[in-house]
Amino acid sequence: MAEPKAKVVHYTDVPAQVFGDTAPGASIRWLIDDDHDGAPVYSMRMIEIEPEGHSPQHTHPYEHENFVVEGNGRLFIAGTWHDLKPGDVAFVPADVLHQYVNAGDTTFKFLCGIPVKKLREQ
Amino acid sequence: MAEPKAKVVHYTDVPAQVFGDTAPGASIRWLIDDDHDGAPVYSMRMIEIEPEGHSPQHTHPYEHENFVVEGNGRLFIAGTWHDLKPGDVAFVPADVLHQYVNAGDTTFKFLCGIPVKKLREQ
Repeated sequence: MAEPKAKVVHYTDVPAQVFGDTAPGASIRWLIDDDHDGAPVYSMRMIEIEPEGHSPQHTHPYEHENFVVEGNGRLFIAGTWHDLKPGDVAFVPADVLHQYVNAGDTTFKFLCGIPVKKLREQ
Repeated sequence: MAEPKAKVVHYTDVPAQVFGDTAPGASIRWLIDDDHDGAPVYSMRMIEIEPEGHSPQHTHPYEHENFVVEGNGRLFIAGTWHDLKPGDVAFVPADVLHQYVNAGDTTFKFLCGIPVKKLREQ
């Protein structure tokens, strides 16, 4: 882990990494994390999903905290679909089946926070 | 702490609490937290500062993770002022003197994440 160091950056200046076949049309930018910034508990990522794209339906032993920045999507949490628009906030607890889908014709962008590595591996 | 429970809510549907005299024009909405949502590591808040408003210049033993949603502001971190616009991300490490100021003529809105209570008190 890096030493904590102040930074200010526009999210578009952080490189986007493509997810791959399991999440067609999706990319991720690690905006604040433990490895680069020394964040002690929480990593802030920006997920961008192109029209017709989606994440896999999946589960993991840590939570998500989401804030929708642009576009429209749908979020599946434990059997229920929720419509998402800019300004919506979502909390997806650990170990709950979930999926993000772009439901519009523009890029669906949302912040997706997770615990840092040492807390994800507890 | 509550049991972790899924939720989806628009940020404007979460009540805004006024800070008071030390932060003129500023209010806070606790969007996701430990007490209400069972968030294990991280609380997501929306801070809104009216034109000419600001936070105090202050420090505390935990970090901030910010994402600017609307408006324009300035952020003081350890002696340096940074301009902030929508889409900007800021990491303010623990124990660093900082201050948020509205630098525009509309409400300056930004997400401000902090560790949950049990981690702030470590």
